[in-house]
This record gives sequence, C-alpha cells and structure tokens, in this order.
Amino acid sequence: MIALFTDFGWNGPYVGQIHARLASDPEPPTVIDLMHDAPRCNPRASALLLAALAEHLPREAIVVAVVDPGVGTARRPIVVEADGRRFVGPDNGLLDAVSARAGRVSWWDIEPQPDVGSATFHGRDLFAPVAARIERGDRLPGTVVEPRFDRSAAGDLAEIIYIDDFGNAVTGLRAPDDRAASLAIGNELFPPARTFADVAPGEGMWLVNSLGLVEVAVNQGNAAQQHALQIGTATHWYDRRSTA
Amino acid sequence: MIALFTDFGWNGPYVGQIHARLASDPEPPTVIDLMHDAPRCNPRASALLLAALAEHLPREAIVVAVVDPGVGTARRPIVVEADGRRFVGPDNGLLDAVSARAGRVSWWDIEPQPDVGSATFHGRDLFAPVAARIERGDRLPGTVVEPRFDRSAAGDLAEIIYIDDFGNAVTGLRAPDDRAASLAIGNELFPPARTFADVAPGEGMWLVNSLGLVEVAVNQGNAAQQHALQIGTATHWYDRRSTA
Amino acid sequence: MIALFTDFGWNGPYVGQIHARLASDPEPPTVIDLMHDAPRCNPRASALLLAALAEHLPREAIVVAVVDPGVGTARRPIVVEADGRRFVGPDNGLLDAVSARAGRVSWWDIEPQPDVGSATFHGRDLFAPVAARIERGDRLPGTVVEPRFDRSAAGDLAEIIYIDDFGNAVTGLRAPDDRAASLAIGNELFPPARTFADVAPGEGMWLVNSLGLVEVAVNQGNAAQQHALQIGTATHWYDRRSTA
Repeated sequence: MIALFTDFGWNGPYVGQIHARLASDPEPPTVIDLMHDAPRCNPRASALLLAALAEHLPREAIVVAVVDPGVGTARRPIVVEADGRRFVGPDNGLLDAVSARAGRVSWWDIEPQPDVGSATFHGRDLFAPVAARIERGDRLPGTVVEPRFDRSAAGDLAEIIYIDDFGNAVTGLRAPDDRAASLAIGNELFPPARTFADVAPGEGMWLVNSLGLVEVAVNQGNAAQQHALQIGTATHWYDRRSTA
Repeated sequence: MIALFTDFGWNGPYVGQIHARLASDPEPPTVIDLMHDAPRCNPRASALLLAALAEHLPREAIVVAVVDPGVGTARRPIVVEADGRRFVGPDNGLLDAVSARAGRVSWWDIEPQPDVGSATFHGRDLFAPVAARIERGDRLPGTVVEPRFDRSAAGDLAEIIYIDDFGNAVTGLRAPDDRAASLAIGNELFPPARTFADVAPGEGMWLVNSLGLVEVAVNQGNAAQQHALQIGTATHWYDRRSTA
Repeated sequence: MIALFTDFGWNGPYVGQIHARLASDPEPPTVIDLMHDAPRCNPRASALLLAALAEHLPREAIVVAVVDPGVGTARRPIVVEADGRRFVGPDNGLLDAVSARAGRVSWWDIEPQPDVGSATFHGRDLFAPVAARIERGDRLPGTVVEPRFDRSAAGDLAEIIYIDDFGNAVTGLRAPDDRAASLAIGNELFPPARTFADVAPGEGMWLVNSLGLVEVAVNQGNAAQQHALQIGTATHWYDRRSTA
C-alpha cells in the first residue's frame, strides 16, 4: 500500500496526477490518500502530524510525504526506513519526527533520476515513482547515508500544529500521564474530557484525539474561531493543585 | 463494495485513516467515497440525503454512515439491513429514513468491541472494521434487536436539507405527482424545470435532481446565496390554479 | 484506467455516485480522480487545462470529462479519440483542444441511451457508463461523425485559465522558446524562474509548471490575491531587449 500525505489540497491537478502516475504502473499498487491538507509549507508541524498518523498505518505501508516549499532547490530527496515503515520525501525536516522516534532508522539519499520531468512537481515525478519501485520490491534507488535529522524532533511540541475543518486544534503533545491537568492557552484553561459530549455544547475542552495527540475542541462548536487559535499558538499544562 | 457517507469533510486525517484501515485488510474491499460533506452534525437531514443516495447504489454495497455528534456517548452503533442493503452507523436518526422506507428491515446492535481504539473516531475504529467483516461474509458482530426508528422518517420533509457547492438547494421532498406546481420559499415562487437551461441565466427554478429529490437552483447562478437559503429553510408547494 | 476530469468539486454527492456506478460494473475498472475543480462552467478554459493534463496520462487512459453547463440541452454527448487517447464528454468546446492538437482525431456521436436516468447528471448516467463500455472493449456506442471542433483551439491562449489553491495562476500558454522573456499582466512584469525558490519570498515570477503551461506564482505567497488575477485575465510576453 502506498499512502499519500501532502499539503497540496484536494483541489488542483496535483493529487490526481500522482494517482495517474501510480495507476499506470504495470502492476498498480493500492494507493490511499492519507491527507492532503498537511500544514502548508510547514515541514516542522507536518512532521509531528505525520509521526502520529504513521503509528496507525500497517507496517507495510509506504508513505509518500510531500510538504516541500523548497522543491527544486538543494534539499535532498530521501527514503527513510523507521521501525520497518518506509517514507519517501524531502529532507527538510518533514521526516525528522518519524526518524527521531524510531528504534531503528535508516536513510537513503535518492540518486538523481534522469527522468525527473518537472522542477516543481517531485511528488509526481520523483517521490511517487520511487515509492512504486520500493513497493514492487525493486532495489532502493539510493545510497545509504548517515541520517541528518534533528534529534529533538523525538519530543513533544507544546504548540498547535494543525486545525481541522471542524475547528478542532491539534497540538504536538502526546497523551500526558496526568489526564486531570488543564491545558492553558493564553489566559484560557481547557479542562480534560474523554469525548466531545463530556462538556456542555459551546464549552471548550482538551482530549486525546484519534491520533493520540492532545486536541483542543469545543462541543458542537469551532474551537479555533472561538479562541483565536492558529498553527504555532503556544500551549502549556496547568495543574490547579500545584498553584500556591 | 464499501461506500463511505460522512460529514468529516475531505480535509483532515479522518477519511484517509478509514481508507488505510480498510486497505490493510488481508483481502481489501473496494471502497468508494460516496460523500463527505453530509449536513454536519445533522443526522436528520443527512438521513434523507442518504436514503435518496442509497437507491442509486448496487444492492451489495455496504454503507458506512457517520454523522455522529454524540460519538462516544450512549447512542448505539448499529447495523441496518434495509431491503437487502446494509448500513453501519450510529442509531441517532441517521439510519431512520432508510429503515422507515424499506419493505424489510432488520437491526443489529453491534457488540462492544474490545479493540475500539478511540472514543472519538468510531468511523475508523468501529464502523469501518464492522463493514469489512460484513463484506468478507463473516457473522454479523451484533445482536438482532427490535428496530428503534422514527416511522415518520418514511415521509418527505418540506425543508432544505443540503446545499451543494454550486449553491443548489436540495429539499427533503421526492418528485411530486404534479410537475406543474411551483415551489414556494418565503415569498418567492420557483417554477418547475426539467434541466438548468430551461430557464434564463440568473433565473430560479425547481427540478427533480439526480437523486430523485426536489432541488432549487438558478441557471448559471447560486440559488442559496441569491435567495438566502440554508439547511432547515421551509418550502411548500404552491398551485396557482388552486388560488381563489 | 478511467480518469475523471470535472468541475463538480469534491463536495456533494456527484463524484461519489460516478465512482459507485463504475465500481458496480461486473469487472470494475481502475478509476482515478484527475481533478474536480476544472474552471467551473467554463469549457473553453477547461479544454486547455485538459489538453495539458492529457499529455501526462498513459495512452490507454479513458477520460470522462464533464464541464457541462448545458447538460440536458441540445449539446451532443461525444467520444473523441485523439492520438489514441479516448475522451467522453459533451461537444461544447471541452474536447476542442485535445481534438485540434492531435495528429489523428475521430469523433463519435453517442447514440441516445434509453437508460439515461437524469436530465442533469450525464456524468453518472451517460458518460461514465460509456467510458466503462469502452474500457471493457465493447463496441463504441455511437456513430462516427465529422469532428465539429474549433481549429483555433490548437493554439495557445494568453489568459489565466486556472487558479489553484496556492494562488498560482496557470495560463493557456505553453512553454515559450524564449525562456528569458518576462510575462506582463496589466502593468506588472513577472520575470522567468525555474522553480519557486528562484526568487525571494513574496516575489512574483513565471515558470513552466508541471503541466507544461506558463504559470504565474509568488514564492511562498498567493499570486492571484497579491496581483488580483482571475480566470480570463489577459497576459502577454514582454521582451525588455525589444523595447526602444
């Protein structure tokens, strides 16, 4: 299975061309669209979202990951194998969290491909074909290299990293040990909940979402609009018991 | 075939994770996205849209239907078999219209699944895996129960239930016998048409849409914006001949 | 492979029903979504985008092309074979560019289909089933006719024909011989670039995009918003060297 994770958006001729390219393979792989609204041009936030998503993928999935504002520049196309899962994408930080959190990690620099058609669409012309080669079991088209990732990407990030269409604001924090703490954003405190309906309609809360990440939500409401949250907004844990 | 009908929107990591889950099955089923912008958090309007859509699906299709603002609360996950078609979803009214309109209907309460990972994402963790089991021909993972649906859901609803991206406003009314009547919304009268181009550009009309539902549209225009229509706006039939 | 090219948008029950129809075939074809935000109700601009996209499709792909504001009127449903690629859609200009640019082109008028269910959804009820018949190798359900396309559609169009979600503005111009010329839009001049990062963040440029078309973009910015570009905005080449 090849899973696509991009910031292309569903609109436009981009995602469709990747599918067309993969479907024209002599033995077309199964291709699924994991998400196409990864934080745009934001490899750092996207990296944390991807790491959380990857844990829910089968081991044999090969992820094509494209959040790549520097496409066509000196950033290197790489293949990462992290605890058995393979990722194809740029080395701009997007694959740092999956690398830093893995027990075993290998990196390959993808060899320059003579047939790369476009300087602006490596998703179609480079990453997807490489994923298809891996899926077929062909030799990895690259050279094993020393991984070049930021080891601090293994940790959590106390910021909003993604806002979904419901206005739920996902943080870079994984489930805390203390499930009773409140999450503070600016002057607001969000109490813990297990599911949206645990608080009254219109009330805010935090919960561990389906990716295993701490998420700020409002029951039947739009947390991002109501609390002016955006990608990058800082959060911190607040324990009433610890206040003097 | 498994068909997905949700209010998740295309954005976000939700639809993709359902696909990933189903694709990781040893014998992956064919999965299609029926629609992902069902009236959000509105099981009643979504139910009528789903009932109309279902008539256009092959009998063997299994629909995963998720419009589920109460996910994680006491509403029950169910399987409905209605005239041979199977639906998996919550018992919050979403499956009432397909139940009430069927000649033969059976309900199963889904047994609590020990492996439900998330309190907030039953689409991925409960409904989709159950649909996959049904598709494989496995025993239904539930108990036959007395159906608990609102029998009035068999009838039409004289309201706007959905507005598409073109601004066309779909009602909960099925094709009337009197195709010459006008449809009234507030003080406006919409004459009947067979297709958009039957009226002048910019003019409004009603027609029987491709789902078999009465729809208000404007030729080359946006009916919802032009006439301030929204989900819940009331409509009624107006027959000039019957006016004194 | 059947590839879908429409202006339906991803939202709504439209694309999903086409997939459901094709998936219910006894031998379901591979179906990919090429794009669903073709310039809405604009067959002329869509035609140029489709012609550029088609060059990146495998020969055996059958394209269902639906940008069809006149659905249900006298425009004819056709099948076009252009240099071996097959296209199914309306004869409203949408298939003129692929026809005019082909070395060998044949047209078939699709015979009236007794089972066309809906006057407003030929994508589901007519074009998709015809594409499936072609894919299965069945006889073309139509009559060879003299092609009725605008031969001028073979040429370029010095206008914006599409704006993507990044705000990049695609023109109907193919890659020029003079890669050093600037592109003028109103009073603004856009210098050439090979990739987005060739200019400073916030600066505009033109480049040959992944479809082979001239595109106006702003590095890490939104060209359409920043420069008030829309579909139909005129462009022209400007060569400083030629100015007196």
